[in-house]
Amino acid sequence: MDLDYVLHTYARDYTHFVKGSGARLFDESGRDYMDFGSGIAVCSVGYGNERLAKAISEQAYNLIHTSNLYGIEPQARLAKRLVELSGYDMRVFFANSGAEANEGALKIARKFGEQLGGIKRYQIITLDSSFHGRTISTLKATAQSKMHDYFGPYPDGFVYAKDLAEIPSKISDVTCAVLLELVQGEGGITPFKREEILHLEKFLKAKNILLMIDEVQTGIYRSGELFASQKYGINPDVITTAKGLGGGVPIGAVMTTLKDIFVPGEHGSTFGGNFLSTRAGLEVLEILEEERSSGRLERTITCFKDRLKDLQKSYPEIFIEEVGLGLMRGLRMRDVESLEKFIKKAKENRVLILKSGKNTARFLPPLTITLEEMEEGFKRLEKAIGDLG
Amino acid sequence: MDLDYVLHTYARDYTHFVKGSGARLFDESGRDYMDFGSGIAVCSVGYGNERLAKAISEQAYNLIHTSNLYGIEPQARLAKRLVELSGYDMRVFFANSGAEANEGALKIARKFGEQLGGIKRYQIITLDSSFHGRTISTLKATAQSKMHDYFGPYPDGFVYAKDLAEIPSKISDVTCAVLLELVQGEGGITPFKREEILHLEKFLKAKNILLMIDEVQTGIYRSGELFASQKYGINPDVITTAKGLGGGVPIGAVMTTLKDIFVPGEHGSTFGGNFLSTRAGLEVLEILEEERSSGRLERTITCFKDRLKDLQKSYPEIFIEEVGLGLMRGLRMRDVESLEKFIKKAKENRVLILKSGKNTARFLPPLTITLEEMEEGFKRLEKAIGDLG
Ligand SMILES: Cc1ncc(COP(=O)(O)O)c(C=O)c1O
Ligand SMILES: Cc1ncc(COP(=O)(O)O)c(C=O)c1O
Repeated sequence: MDLDYVLHTYARDYTHFVKGSGARLFDESGRDYMDFGSGIAVCSVGYGNERLAKAISEQAYNLIHTSNLYGIEPQARLAKRLVELSGYDMRVFFANSGAEANEGALKIARKFGEQLGGIKRYQIITLDSSFHGRTISTLKATAQSKMHDYFGPYPDGFVYAKDLAEIPSKISDVTCAVLLELVQGEGGITPFKREEILHLEKFLKAKNILLMIDEVQTGIYRSGELFASQKYGINPDVITTAKGLGGGVPIGAVMTTLKDIFVPGEHGSTFGGNFLSTRAGLEVLEILEEERSSGRLERTITCFKDRLKDLQKSYPEIFIEEVGLGLMRGLRMRDVESLEKFIKKAKENRVLILKSGKNTARFLPPLTITLEEMEEGFKRLEKAIGDLG
Repeated sequence: MDLDYVLHTYARDYTHFVKGSGARLFDESGRDYMDFGSGIAVCSVGYGNERLAKAISEQAYNLIHTSNLYGIEPQARLAKRLVELSGYDMRVFFANSGAEANEGALKIARKFGEQLGGIKRYQIITLDSSFHGRTISTLKATAQSKMHDYFGPYPDGFVYAKDLAEIPSKISDVTCAVLLELVQGEGGITPFKREEILHLEKFLKAKNILLMIDEVQTGIYRSGELFASQKYGINPDVITTAKGLGGGVPIGAVMTTLKDIFVPGEHGSTFGGNFLSTRAGLEVLEILEEERSSGRLERTITCFKDRLKDLQKSYPEIFIEEVGLGLMRGLRMRDVESLEKFIKKAKENRVLILKSGKNTARFLPPLTITLEEMEEGFKRLEKAIGDLG
C-alpha cells in the first residue's frame, strides 16, 4: 500500500485488512484477527453484517442523498427512533462525526446562555482527560493541555475541572453548561460513580446550567442501553453521539430537550442526516435493540466482563484492575510500556485491542460478538500474555 | 413524514423524494422532478448511478470501516488519485464534511504560522460573502456578520477583506494564510477574475503567506477540471474539498503541499477516510474523469451554459446576467422576491433550482446529466417563467 499521498496524522500499524466477518478481520494473506476494538467503537454490529449491508446497498441503488431543503424520510424516522428508544423528550440534529455532534452541543450551550437574559453566559466546563474531537473548538473543549499546541487562538470560554467534585468550584455567573463523558473513552475507561453523577445533575438543574453528555463512544448500546445516560438514570439536556450509530457509515447526532433552540439557518450540514447514513442508522438501531430486548446483549456483556475479570485475577502482576461499563471495558496496567507491549503481543496473536489514557488496555468488541468469537479471542489473549515473558 | 423529532435548523419544503435516477428525483406519487441542484453539488454522478451503487454495495458487504490505526487501502488509493488527477504535489487528510475539511485547513495554516520562527503568525484572511461551514471556527471564517450571533466567544484571528483587491491592505505581520472560494457558492456564483487570482497568488508567495482554496463546492469536476484551481492555473498551498467527492457518501478532504505539517496525534477523525467513503470517492473520480477525458463534460457544460444564456437573453427583464464556471452557474435576478418566486414556480413545474446570495438562481446539475434531461429541464423552466405572470 502506497501511503505516500496521505498526511501523517496517524501512528499506523501497516496491517492491511481486506475483509471482515462478524468480529473477525482478515488481512491480505487470509489470516484472521479477532477484533476487540470495532474500529474504535464504530462497527457496533460487526463486520459484513448482512442486514446492514443490505440496507446500505438498497439505499445506494435507490437514493443516497438529497439536500435538507427537502424532507428526508429515514432522517425523520431515525430521529424518532432515537427519541423513542431513549425515552428522552428531545429533538435531534444530524451531523457527520463525533466532533461535529459536539460542535452542535457547544452552539446549543452558547445560544442557551445568551437567551437567559442578563449577561451572556458562555463558559462550558469540561473534565481533565476528556476527549471531544479534533475541530479547533472541540480540541479546546478537550481538557488535555497537550492538545492545545499550535492551532490557536482557540475560542475562549472553556473551563477545566480536575474531576466531578471540582465542578462546583469552577462555576461562575457566566457558566452555561457542563460537557462530559460518563466513561472517558480516551481517558482510562473508569465509569464515573452513579451517585456523583446524580448529585451533579441535581446541582446543575438547580443552577439552570446545562448537563451535556458526550455519548460519542458510550452511546448506541455500548453500555447495554441505547445511551449510558439511561444506565445512570439521568436526564441530560443535551446528548451527542456518533461512532456506532451508522455501523461504519459516517454519522453523528446531537439531541436536546431544548427543542426550539435553533431557528432555520443557525445550524446545518450538507451531508448530515442524508438518506444513506440515516438508513444505515435505522438498521443498526433495529439490530441492536433486538440484541438488547432479547437479553443477548446483557449476556454478552456479563460474559465478556467475567472473562476480563478472570484475566485480571489470574495475572494481577500484569493487570492492576478491571474497569468499565457494558462492552466498553479496560484492564489497567502498570505503565505505558507494558501496555504497548501487551497490545503488540495481542496483535501478533491476532487479537486487536486498543489503548486508553496512559496505561489502560481498552476493549470495545462489536456488540454482536458471538460466544465462539469471544472464547477464541480470549484464548489468543492468554497466549499473548504467555508471550510477554 | 413526522418531522417533530428533528431540530428546526432547515427551512424545509416538505416535498418528499423516494427515489432518484439520473438527474431525476421522484416523489411519493411518482411525479418526477428534474434536479438542477444535485443536493447542493453533492450528487455529482447523478441518482441511482449503477457504478457508484455497486461500489458502495460491494464495500458494505465486505468491509465498511476499520480505524486509522491500520492501513486502509482505498484511502491510500484515493489520496493518490486526487494528487495524480490534480497534478498537485500534495498529501491528503480525509474528513467527513466540508466544514471538517476547512477545520483541517485552519489547523494547517496556524501550525505553519507558528513554525516560521519569530512571532507566531495566526491571522487568516477570508472574503465577504464567503461560506466555509457550520462549526464554530468555520462560521467565524465565514465573512458574513449575520453568521456571528449567539455562538461566541469565537476564536480570534480571522480578518475579512471586502474583495480580492482589499487583501493586501489587510495583511499584517501575523497573517499566515488567505482562504477563499474561486467561485462563491453561497455568495452569488460570480467567478473571480483569473488575472486577479494569479496576481494574488504571486503576491502571497512573495510574502510566504498560504493560499488556501475552499473547493468544497467548486471541486470534483464542477469547473470542468478536478479542481477549479486547475482551471485558474494556480498552485494553492492548501485545497479543501467535500460535497461531490463521495457522490452522496459523507466525505471531505484537505490537501496540502506542506507534506509534513502534521505529526501523528495532531489531527484525526474516527470515520475520516474509511473503506466505504473512500471506495465511493474512487468510483466517483473514475466516472467523472471518464466524463472529462472523453470530452462529454465539456460538451455538457457548453450546452448548459448556452441554454442559460439564451434564457437570459430571452428574458432580460427577469434575468440581469448569466454567471458561473463549468456546471456551477447562476442567473442574477432583480431581488430576493423575484428569485424566490422563480424557484417556487420552477418547483411547481418540477425543476429544482437553488438560491445563492441575495438574488442569484443557482444551477448545479449532476455532472452526468444527459442532453435529454437538460432539454426537458429547460422546457419546464420556460413554462415556469411563463407562470411568473
Ligand atoms: C468521547 C468522544 N467524543 C468525541 C469524539 C470525536 O469523534 P470523531 O472522531 O467522530 O470526530 C470521540 C472520538 O474518539 C470520542 O471518543
Ligand atoms: C464553499 C463551501 N465550503 C464549506 C462548506 C461546508 O460544507 P459542509 O456543509 O459539508 O460542512 C460549504 C457548504 O455549503 C461550501 O459551499
